[in-house]
Amino acid sequence: MTGNHDALGANPDAEGALTRAQGFSACGFTAGIKESGLPDLALLVSDHPATAAAVYTQNQSTAAPVHISKAHTANGSLRAAVVNSGNANCATGEQGLADAREMTQLTASLIGCEAEEVFVNSTGIIGHYLPMDLLRSAIPQLAPASDGGADFARSIMTTDTFQKEAVASFEANGVTYTVGGCAKGAGMIHPDMATMLAFFTTDAPVAAGALESCFRFAMDRSFNMVTVDGDTSTNDSSVILANGAAGGEPLSGASLEAFGSALLDVSTALAKMMARDGEGATKRISITVSGAKSWNDARDVARTIALSPLLKAALSKYDPNWGRILMAAGRAGVPYDLDQVSIWISDLCVFDGTATGVPEAEASQKTQGDEVFLRMDLGQGDAEATAWGCDLTEEYVRFNADYVT
Amino acid sequence: MTGNHDALGANPDAEGALTRAQGFSACGFTAGIKESGLPDLALLVSDHPATAAAVYTQNQSTAAPVHISKAHTANGSLRAAVVNSGNANCATGEQGLADAREMTQLTASLIGCEAEEVFVNSTGIIGHYLPMDLLRSAIPQLAPASDGGADFARSIMTTDTFQKEAVASFEANGVTYTVGGCAKGAGMIHPDMATMLAFFTTDAPVAAGALESCFRFAMDRSFNMVTVDGDTSTNDSSVILANGAAGGEPLSGASLEAFGSALLDVSTALAKMMARDGEGATKRISITVSGAKSWNDARDVARTIALSPLLKAALSKYDPNWGRILMAAGRAGVPYDLDQVSIWISDLCVFDGTATGVPEAEASQKTQGDEVFLRMDLGQGDAEATAWGCDLTEEYVRFNADYVT
Repeated sequence: MTGNHDALGANPDAEGALTRAQGFSACGFTAGIKESGLPDLALLVSDHPATAAAVYTQNQSTAAPVHISKAHTANGSLRAAVVNSGNANCATGEQGLADAREMTQLTASLIGCEAEEVFVNSTGIIGHYLPMDLLRSAIPQLAPASDGGADFARSIMTTDTFQKEAVASFEANGVTYTVGGCAKGAGMIHPDMATMLAFFTTDAPVAAGALESCFRFAMDRSFNMVTVDGDTSTNDSSVILANGAAGGEPLSGASLEAFGSALLDVSTALAKMMARDGEGATKRISITVSGAKSWNDARDVARTIALSPLLKAALSKYDPNWGRILMAAGRAGVPYDLDQVSIWISDLCVFDGTATGVPEAEASQKTQGDEVFLRMDLGQGDAEATAWGCDLTEEYVRFNADYVT
Repeated sequence: MTGNHDALGANPDAEGALTRAQGFSACGFTAGIKESGLPDLALLVSDHPATAAAVYTQNQSTAAPVHISKAHTANGSLRAAVVNSGNANCATGEQGLADAREMTQLTASLIGCEAEEVFVNSTGIIGHYLPMDLLRSAIPQLAPASDGGADFARSIMTTDTFQKEAVASFEANGVTYTVGGCAKGAGMIHPDMATMLAFFTTDAPVAAGALESCFRFAMDRSFNMVTVDGDTSTNDSSVILANGAAGGEPLSGASLEAFGSALLDVSTALAKMMARDGEGATKRISITVSGAKSWNDARDVARTIALSPLLKAALSKYDPNWGRILMAAGRAGVPYDLDQVSIWISDLCVFDGTATGVPEAEASQKTQGDEVFLRMDLGQGDAEATAWGCDLTEEYVRFNADYVT
């Protein structure tokens, strides 16, 4: 990971991350789907067939492009990804499926591959048919370039306040490999306008099975540890293309671990940018749960705390309300003994079976700044997990109430 | 059920509901726990030993009085319930348990029963020891009266804006029986200041086993169908005392069903008052999910929709955003086929596999008023469930952010 992060967690040094790996090109385009006139169509292409892995929303109200992409990624190989913003192509029935399929066909014609090698997604409002006339005109005009990563990242945004890119490199068997990624999503607070999409590229040679397991691991520990409001979208998708363009033998053992670690770095950086960009948020909240019996237990407690509207509201006004941490943790479904529990706000232990008596003003001081670090130790084992969220402000409600479809 | 409900759902005709059934007395008292000087200590007494049933919070961070009351209700019999507001006696370790136990002993001495026959609870802030000097002075002064139900209801309030009481009667075997209840809780939005407590009385003769099953059924379909923000408290408890003072044989068959129905009426009325009193709420949202394969499925989808902050924010500004209903339903963990789904806002069908094209202004009109009725049909079966929530306004965030422990 390189470069400096600003207060929002963006990393200017990662500009164009998606095309940093060899053998990838990308672009963005204004097709006219968004009324704002901002870019709303993006294309990523691998020069060569790439192994691929993807994860998708578990939402039962699945959008049409997710159905098509699931089928296309089933065989673990892709050449391209085409995405539009401004319209989610969700709740659009048979017509929506046909439209998503046509997007892959138009893309396949442009770059000379099979439609089944194209990943497709859409992000935006629910319940409206895609303006296919615009897409039929725009897709053939797309001109992916080897420095087009940043344009791609900008074209998938909806309510994001900044583009989210991250890049990492690692060495294996004497070769330097690159992993790049970009994502969109202001947390998960705008599911009906889009929410999360993420795209990753690497020039490392990774077999489909290994790619799949590394990818799932990284997703579980990054995007699946971010919450803004608990609402999940109909279109959430994350995909990686590994084209092996940097050469070398398929990774295994320590080399594969190095790849997995770089991928986790990139996905975690993107996930943390999403938490910080939560609508109306003024700070990121980082919650580490330690002393759990298993990672799953630690994850469940950390995510439940991160989700609590009462805690999020308290932290927006520097209230070090650890009672709300205990309260939220208690409904995660993970058994613990309250007498064994400890809670820290930054480096201050505020609860250790009973209140430690830390002065409130001192604890409040630790909730200032761009990020608040909370830790809860369950006193049961060695497992630990971290989740990221953001505070809840009046601005969140104002935005989501005033936005009218 | 009797009487008129005002805009907030309160029912003035139910004043004193808890002591409407024969053989019960109650009172409220200002012990000085609350800085506001409002009543903060309440006592309910049955003239005769009563069968009892109770349900408790599932929160792992369980408050001390919940531990004591669980033990005391284990044998299915109670004489009294003593409750304080202003302090939750939670996260208080061994001292907290001793204090809760002493509250039951002081109460037992006052009314002449065993400490094990006394239910105890507390509601208020977490992490502070009870002011036992105040309680040692106050409890011996309590003077329960046969018209003291309303005083009890007022004394258990914390952030509630009105007292919540409901009463119903039914006939069985030629005898008229009464079921009364009161509850506190502005939804579940103030878990660390108390959240939900509910108390029920009846003069019907109901055996312990039958009472337990009727009570659990009523709780599942009333309080367990209300959500304000998904946060659950460390102190939530609900208890019923059945003293048989109206005479007759223990209820069974149709008589028991009549009792169960009256109890469900009372608990549902109280639950709906809580939803309407959600902090900052301007309206109640009633969500019926029909066409499900099972009641559990319908319940899970209805509750998940009721919880969605995005939907709640939209409805606060009359935005008939049915995409948010679909989005929220999709994460309930219940499989369905989107093509089979229909959605109504009041009597308008806005989605039926695809958008029905109802003009937005017309749908928005149906979101005005004190209550919005939503229905989602899954097209899978005959089961149906209703959940109640409220809208999410800036006032919710302001209140919970500005409140400082």
